Amino acid sequence: MSGRDELRERAFRANLDIVAAGLVVLTFGNASAVDRGAGVMAIKPSGVPYADLTADAIVLVDVDTGEVVDGAYRPSSDTPTHLVLYRRFDGVGGIVHTHSPYATAWAQALLPIPCLGTTHADHFHGPVPVTRALAEDEIAGDYETRTGNVVVETLERLELDPLEMPAVLVASHGPFAWGEDAESAVENAVALEAVAASAYRTVSLAADVAQIDDGLLQRHYRRKHGAGAYYGQPRGS
Amino acid sequence: MSGRDELRERAFRANLDIVAAGLVVLTFGNASAVDRGAGVMAIKPSGVPYADLTADAIVLVDVDTGEVVDGAYRPSSDTPTHLVLYRRFDGVGGIVHTHSPYATAWAQALLPIPCLGTTHADHFHGPVPVTRALAEDEIAGDYETRTGNVVVETLERLELDPLEMPAVLVASHGPFAWGEDAESAVENAVALEAVAASAYRTVSLAADVAQIDDGLLQRHYRRKHGAGAYYGQPRGS
Amino acid sequence: MSGRDELRERAFRANLDIVAAGLVVLTFGNASAVDRGAGVMAIKPSGVPYADLTADAIVLVDVDTGEVVDGAYRPSSDTPTHLVLYRRFDGVGGIVHTHSPYATAWAQALLPIPCLGTTHADHFHGPVPVTRALAEDEIAGDYETRTGNVVVETLERLELDPLEMPAVLVASHGPFAWGEDAESAVENAVALEAVAASAYRTVSLAADVAQIDDGLLQRHYRRKHGAGAYYGQPRGS
Amino acid sequence: MSGRDELRERAFRANLDIVAAGLVVLTFGNASAVDRGAGVMAIKPSGVPYADLTADAIVLVDVDTGEVVDGAYRPSSDTPTHLVLYRRFDGVGGIVHTHSPYATAWAQALLPIPCLGTTHADHFHGPVPVTRALAEDEIAGDYETRTGNVVVETLERLELDPLEMPAVLVASHGPFAWGEDAESAVENAVALEAVAASAYRTVSLAADVAQIDDGLLQRHYRRKHGAGAYYGQPRGS
Repeated sequence: MSGRDELRERAFRANLDIVAAGLVVLTFGNASAVDRGAGVMAIKPSGVPYADLTADAIVLVDVDTGEVVDGAYRPSSDTPTHLVLYRRFDGVGGIVHTHSPYATAWAQALLPIPCLGTTHADHFHGPVPVTRALAEDEIAGDYETRTGNVVVETLERLELDPLEMPAVLVASHGPFAWGEDAESAVENAVALEAVAASAYRTVSLAADVAQIDDGLLQRHYRRKHGAGAYYGQPRGS
Repeated sequence: MSGRDELRERAFRANLDIVAAGLVVLTFGNASAVDRGAGVMAIKPSGVPYADLTADAIVLVDVDTGEVVDGAYRPSSDTPTHLVLYRRFDGVGGIVHTHSPYATAWAQALLPIPCLGTTHADHFHGPVPVTRALAEDEIAGDYETRTGNVVVETLERLELDPLEMPAVLVASHGPFAWGEDAESAVENAVALEAVAASAYRTVSLAADVAQIDDGLLQRHYRRKHGAGAYYGQPRGS
Repeated sequence: MSGRDELRERAFRANLDIVAAGLVVLTFGNASAVDRGAGVMAIKPSGVPYADLTADAIVLVDVDTGEVVDGAYRPSSDTPTHLVLYRRFDGVGGIVHTHSPYATAWAQALLPIPCLGTTHADHFHGPVPVTRALAEDEIAGDYETRTGNVVVETLERLELDPLEMPAVLVASHGPFAWGEDAESAVENAVALEAVAASAYRTVSLAADVAQIDDGLLQRHYRRKHGAGAYYGQPRGS
Repeated sequence: MSGRDELRERAFRANLDIVAAGLVVLTFGNASAVDRGAGVMAIKPSGVPYADLTADAIVLVDVDTGEVVDGAYRPSSDTPTHLVLYRRFDGVGGIVHTHSPYATAWAQALLPIPCLGTTHADHFHGPVPVTRALAEDEIAGDYETRTGNVVVETLERLELDPLEMPAVLVASHGPFAWGEDAESAVENAVALEAVAASAYRTVSLAADVAQIDDGLLQRHYRRKHGAGAYYGQPRGS
């Protein structure tokens, strides 16, 4: 399989996986994968029903210019948002955008998802932030690029490492999640929805519950990430 | 396939699709398609379990007279409501009625679904309205026709184009959705339920959240609809 | 097929149908069917996992004496409750007991399910009542018989015809539903859960919403039931 | 099949069953089984996707020393928690840990699950307790062992028999459930989630509803457990 075919295949599988995980209704979602060496991103074509999607239909886009490199279809209308994130964050290898039910509810409520338990801390190194609303001129202009910019701005304002906080809620819109590759982007999108649902029910039971202590947050996050991680199997095993 | 068989087939598939999408429990729902040239509507037979439904069982009804043109069964008891909408709105090619869980909750709460995010704005050009309650004499008389009338009255009172607001909640009852053909009517019914669920959870998290700004609403709606649309693939591609 | 085999088959299928409809977790539920001519009830064996259930395992019980007439297993521990209902209500041909999620929540909240929409009115002729709590001596004694008695007492106190109100919530326990045969008992149990979920979400959106007007309740109930019914296909068609 | 293979097979099946029951998203959960005679526990390997899990991948661990006895993978990171429970509670033969949606919401809300109905009383002899939060030094040190200790401490403080209260919520984390064998541990984890969901909805409908009377609790618990049990089929039948 050529490098391009393999990249398409990975983006294709990520798009199928977010549907299988119940994160997508109709065509409300898209996943991409990047090949840093080739400077090419593979992304879902715009508005194509998931049932009709094939690996061949995945569109290849030049990360620098934003031009379609290969593909019979128009790429996702959210393509400029993905490009901003790939350009700004070197470590990101895959991006998933959905309107998943509970994460979208937090985004529409204009609220970050508080860190209320260890499931959250296993994946996200603190509360999952929500962006500010876009200004009128940002919406009227190159809207999708500005959406990417406000995600970047949010992480920078909070001094967050994008691989330690691999998701942001776009206000009144929905979540973007990412990871070092497309597979981990999907995993983070699935974890985000589980965590969003869990936090929704928790605040419904106890409106004023506090976030977990920093010690517990660090412990769970570091069980799975970084040099001291001991969750999972050793790399290369 | 003859024109009548094709029309039946489209109505049949739309009825199956609303079940597959989880919008229907038992026999709580029906879908129809219209052939404007022939002046004929195809609709689900009344009270037939979805598991037993075949394309042959779909009933053909004259749009003007309301008489059954062809079919072995009695048409859906909601047939007069569908007829009112087809007669009044030329651009409508398909109609879906369901008691889908979250849209019905808003209808029973006598509340419009506020526009709280871009998923909503992608499909509905503003809040999805709820009708007034029917008066006693409307209920006692030709109830199903009056149900259609109050849907029309609601759109007219709010000066809404039915193709820009392709759904209305009937108070204490449930949603009617439509589109330029049966396929888009199903899509709008699915989007409506997703949006209704999302808004339900949003107001549960933040009771007083405001609707999105008009600029964001217009941007998302116009991404998908009208001359400037750039979502999806070019027509004819 | 003999009469006994047919009766077993109908009870068996009703038990499978409540699982397929998502009303049952683990072994929390049972369905029965009665043969009035033979004076025999067919009911699920106690505690047998649904995956292992066969028509042969269904237990036949004499309606008058409560003795097992035929069957290798002990009948459902709720057998005495079913017997009370069959003895008291001649028109009942099938009974379903579940701990379905939303109906059980209303039962545990000690609240009747208010009639908030037409889905409800299509199946239940008014709010679905909840019993009083059983007294200490009722619980300590022949508990399952007393459970049946309090269902009967509830319908009688409210002067409800059991075929017009084919379900009652047992306080702190869960719903019993029934119908003129096992198939309609299952249908009523499914409708009850849909209505319970819908009402739950409605009061969450609008805590003080009023029940629907009597005119709308009668119209919908009478569309489907009694001499003037016009929903569904003519009997014998 | 050898004893070790059989033990692996039982732990393997328990791990599949919690996924099939919808209790697990991604790799958030693990099940174990113990062979008391051999002093060996079989547990899921850490971080292995459920879709890739085989019986051979199950890891065998010495209950006393905590050393891996047999297996190609690193055992679940929660292994020390399981070991504490097996060491302390002789009657426990299987343990299930999940982040199931509703039970986790109660754990994150730092609230016990009140006993609001008979479904609860059928499985848990009173409210399902929640642990205190772990102290900073407990989190920083041998965290997973301390998690087991705080479960034990909670049962002892409340003077609960672990087989009569076969689940505890770990604060800000999620549920541990167990039983006399792996199969009943799974059953208790499934029942716990159903009960947690039901209680969530009940308090949403009626915030101040009281727990059920002790008489009803005892009756339902004793229908299924102990010498006077009459639910299910006679042992050995």
